[in-house]
Amino acid sequence: MQHQPVSRYSLPDIDDLPEDIRQRIAEVREKAGFVPNIFLTLARRPAEFRAFFAYHDALMEKETPGLGQAEREMIVVATSARNQCQYCVIAHGAILRIRAKNPHIADQIATNYRKADISARQKAMLDYALKVSRRAELVDEDDHARLREHGFDDEDIWDIGSIAAFFGLSNRIVNMSSMRTNDEFYLLGRVPREK
Amino acid sequence: MQHQPVSRYSLPDIDDLPEDIRQRIAEVREKAGFVPNIFLTLARRPAEFRAFFAYHDALMEKETPGLGQAEREMIVVATSARNQCQYCVIAHGAILRIRAKNPHIADQIATNYRKADISARQKAMLDYALKVSRRAELVDEDDHARLREHGFDDEDIWDIGSIAAFFGLSNRIVNMSSMRTNDEFYLLGRVPREK
Amino acid sequence: MQHQPVSRYSLPDIDDLPEDIRQRIAEVREKAGFVPNIFLTLARRPAEFRAFFAYHDALMEKETPGLGQAEREMIVVATSARNQCQYCVIAHGAILRIRAKNPHIADQIATNYRKADISARQKAMLDYALKVSRRAELVDEDDHARLREHGFDDEDIWDIGSIAAFFGLSNRIVNMSSMRTNDEFYLLGRVPREK
Amino acid sequence: MQHQPVSRYSLPDIDDLPEDIRQRIAEVREKAGFVPNIFLTLARRPAEFRAFFAYHDALMEKETPGLGQAEREMIVVATSARNQCQYCVIAHGAILRIRAKNPHIADQIATNYRKADISARQKAMLDYALKVSRRAELVDEDDHARLREHGFDDEDIWDIGSIAAFFGLSNRIVNMSSMRTNDEFYLLGRVPREK
Amino acid sequence: MQHQPVSRYSLPDIDDLPEDIRQRIAEVREKAGFVPNIFLTLARRPAEFRAFFAYHDALMEKETPGLGQAEREMIVVATSARNQCQYCVIAHGAILRIRAKNPHIADQIATNYRKADISARQKAMLDYALKVSRRAELVDEDDHARLREHGFDDEDIWDIGSIAAFFGLSNRIVNMSSMRTNDEFYLLGRVPREK
Amino acid sequence: MQHQPVSRYSLPDIDDLPEDIRQRIAEVREKAGFVPNIFLTLARRPAEFRAFFAYHDALMEKETPGLGQAEREMIVVATSARNQCQYCVIAHGAILRIRAKNPHIADQIATNYRKADISARQKAMLDYALKVSRRAELVDEDDHARLREHGFDDEDIWDIGSIAAFFGLSNRIVNMSSMRTNDEFYLLGRVPREK
Repeated sequence: MQHQPVSRYSLPDIDDLPEDIRQRIAEVREKAGFVPNIFLTLARRPAEFRAFFAYHDALMEKETPGLGQAEREMIVVATSARNQCQYCVIAHGAILRIRAKNPHIADQIATNYRKADISARQKAMLDYALKVSRRAELVDEDDHARLREHGFDDEDIWDIGSIAAFFGLSNRIVNMSSMRTNDEFYLLGRVPREK
Repeated sequence: MQHQPVSRYSLPDIDDLPEDIRQRIAEVREKAGFVPNIFLTLARRPAEFRAFFAYHDALMEKETPGLGQAEREMIVVATSARNQCQYCVIAHGAILRIRAKNPHIADQIATNYRKADISARQKAMLDYALKVSRRAELVDEDDHARLREHGFDDEDIWDIGSIAAFFGLSNRIVNMSSMRTNDEFYLLGRVPREK
Repeated sequence: MQHQPVSRYSLPDIDDLPEDIRQRIAEVREKAGFVPNIFLTLARRPAEFRAFFAYHDALMEKETPGLGQAEREMIVVATSARNQCQYCVIAHGAILRIRAKNPHIADQIATNYRKADISARQKAMLDYALKVSRRAELVDEDDHARLREHGFDDEDIWDIGSIAAFFGLSNRIVNMSSMRTNDEFYLLGRVPREK
Repeated sequence: MQHQPVSRYSLPDIDDLPEDIRQRIAEVREKAGFVPNIFLTLARRPAEFRAFFAYHDALMEKETPGLGQAEREMIVVATSARNQCQYCVIAHGAILRIRAKNPHIADQIATNYRKADISARQKAMLDYALKVSRRAELVDEDDHARLREHGFDDEDIWDIGSIAAFFGLSNRIVNMSSMRTNDEFYLLGRVPREK
Repeated sequence: MQHQPVSRYSLPDIDDLPEDIRQRIAEVREKAGFVPNIFLTLARRPAEFRAFFAYHDALMEKETPGLGQAEREMIVVATSARNQCQYCVIAHGAILRIRAKNPHIADQIATNYRKADISARQKAMLDYALKVSRRAELVDEDDHARLREHGFDDEDIWDIGSIAAFFGLSNRIVNMSSMRTNDEFYLLGRVPREK
Repeated sequence: MQHQPVSRYSLPDIDDLPEDIRQRIAEVREKAGFVPNIFLTLARRPAEFRAFFAYHDALMEKETPGLGQAEREMIVVATSARNQCQYCVIAHGAILRIRAKNPHIADQIATNYRKADISARQKAMLDYALKVSRRAELVDEDDHARLREHGFDDEDIWDIGSIAAFFGLSNRIVNMSSMRTNDEFYLLGRVPREK
């Protein structure tokens, strides 16, 4: 299985990549123990690589009182499942399991978030994220009012909608390039970590 | 998590159930080590319980040259994912991993079977299953011809379509009753079995 | 017209069928004056035949204070029309006309149940049935609360949803096998019975 | 049942109507034995009444070598069923039965024209009619080429598409005004005419 | 660009047209300075031409206290955009700009009327028009009640729905015949008129 | 009209913005004569602003033999129209008119690109862009093969799909924030430039 191509597109030689990109890839390998395919796939287009991860980090490497990191990952998993993006569901499902310290949450949200073991507040968050993801043209003041009733402020709403929008971009790039998911993601966060 | 209700409906007392149903439940507990929630949920309606599992067994406890047991489970996972049925995707995802001896296949098929590591023949099988599941009114001779080109005979086609149709029933009952998934299914088939 | 094949699949020789199936077919011929094609089509798969009719009878050969037999047939006609199932709409349309003693009700419900001459309670019943049939993943507590406001109890709701789910299975089998409708059904219940 | 209102809108007093409209209504009553509700409903707007029936007659009171009157009614029934228009399906179903001298054809086409006892040429005609009715924005040269292969010429194609378009207008007016269907239509063409 | 054919269908010779049609065409040329393609395209079918414009005039050449002419054009633009009808959006967009004396309104409504600079009353009007245009089978008393809350009376509602229905017909004829838009419409109403 | 808020979100004070963002805004004002609202709306989130425009420039400020700048704008207009994004359709419609030197092309593509005055090659490009935009999960090798038949290479395909994906992100942010369109865009490229 591991010899199948990473995507429809050939991979660049890592040694030929610009220094900043090589370094980012080295860091993620150091931290995760492997290089997630999204890094390799986008590296062939350095300017897009940089913009993609800068946008990603601005939205995801952030923790606010209104929106924790696990909740941010819930948005990724719920919207990516609806967009049928294998890489995003499986890779971010792993991150969600780890951040939520819950081995079941990602499979529940990927299949039907309305039936997942999450709070009413989190369901309202995902209702909005899905609406932005699939029918953003219908978003109106009532949607924002409903989120505020659940205690989200305007910056939280911006974050929720932007994460849905950003991963909509990511989902489409993965599907158009037929990018594979790294084998390592499937099991991450499902079993207690070995020491 | 384990104290949440199995479904919207209360469970019958197992001791009050008809003998044949108690026995079936005892058998599955013996074999699996736990009682899958579908058995408990349907037991409150003995006649429906019997009909449901008789239908299930007729389609799923079968192995033909044209359609192996793992392939039957692929159909369940692909159509149930499209119908957003948590129990069916997670429980049958486990069975699929075990029957296919492949820890990744269920997550791939649940998210987007078109990108899964399966054969062109299996993709044609799932194309047909999804068409029966979602737009059966459009099924025509061309669909059957395409399956025959891939070596499926008329009995295989009946099986593929019937599995899609039967689990469509199952998906709807799970969603209308908000039936939970047993915790045991999530990890089954993902790690080598302990001895 | 009557010489066209009953379905894509050849029919079994009735004499070769298991005794219980031959008997069920004899009974229905005795009662209806002809053998509805669903019996002949499923007879080629005895285990599925038995499970199908056992399930059918458990849901349809039943009359409860909350859900009469005519109302059960309304559910069949409304959901089958939406699934574009010729046999189910025409055959169960006939049964509905007879059970409701109303020659117009089936055509009204098949075309647009919202405009049919039925009660608000029956419209709420069909709203739920259609939701289970077409978007069961969205069913939530509000749907159940609405039915309870109309006087349906939890067992009625189980019946409504299960009938929608079971005939969804039936609709798909009819469409995948291109099963014809018996000529006799078209006129049944439209004119006063001859004595 | 017969005392229910004809539509959401009150009916004009026939004596107050302009002479040409009164005469048209008298003619249809003479011919059919009753006044179809569409005449009464539109009469409150004389200019629209005249335009509606002029358009109707231009498309429907016509018989060409390529497109018989029964085929024109098939288009009405198939597209109106998809648009869930009770009056159009039931009233034109009656006319179709009479014109095709076939008591089953209307119910078959209303439920799923792909499974009806009609020719491949007629199915191609209805494929096009449905495309114009539901997704006209996608109509392209290939659609026209397919019809020409079946022997339809450009004037036939104009007729097929225009009938679908005109009855789309009719379907919407019926649904917005909740216009009822006359009881007389249900049985017309189903039993041999009494003499 | 101006030498491309007006539609898939050849144009009649104006001199061969019936007198009333020639006169109507002469009048519109006199008034607009050019002949909109809809007149030329329909002229090949005189009876349909007359019915079409009679219906059009009955609905559009009218100004009532509840529904001004600019509002009527808003309905045309919003529903035609959803039906992806180039001629109707561009030609009636021009008329809307002129009647509303607003150079921006047509582009806003064509893209997403929910975000246009129009009143809440006008949005409710367009919500209803779009529902009639796209899902008329769902129209119910609540929709009418909502419009009455905004001050529309039953005749206004008939007009709103009928305009949506009539232009649905028009949209389909334009798309099936691939009718082009006259170049003159694009700029009309965008810049102050020269004197 | 010009006093309506730019979006649901308040604007930052330009003087408080980081230097690089102030400079980018100054440049675009210098070049265009006004500041497009997307710059003001995103400026409140400097990191997202930088990532957004870096991504935008990487895809749009580029001209390759296979994909000219006008064609890139066609993709933006066609996909944004389908996503009902007012700002993107109107602003990029203006840029498309200018780059294509064609005052009609944007309105045609926004309404129905299949009927626009563009080449078969450009229609294939937009077919693919719309598929990535709306149903990326279905993209397969056949889609890529079709583009290669029209002379697009793999890098062009990456660009087409990425532009569709990136503007999908942009469309969602505009709709969730109810961002207005600057008045200046409506007329740009419609009339010969004054000197």
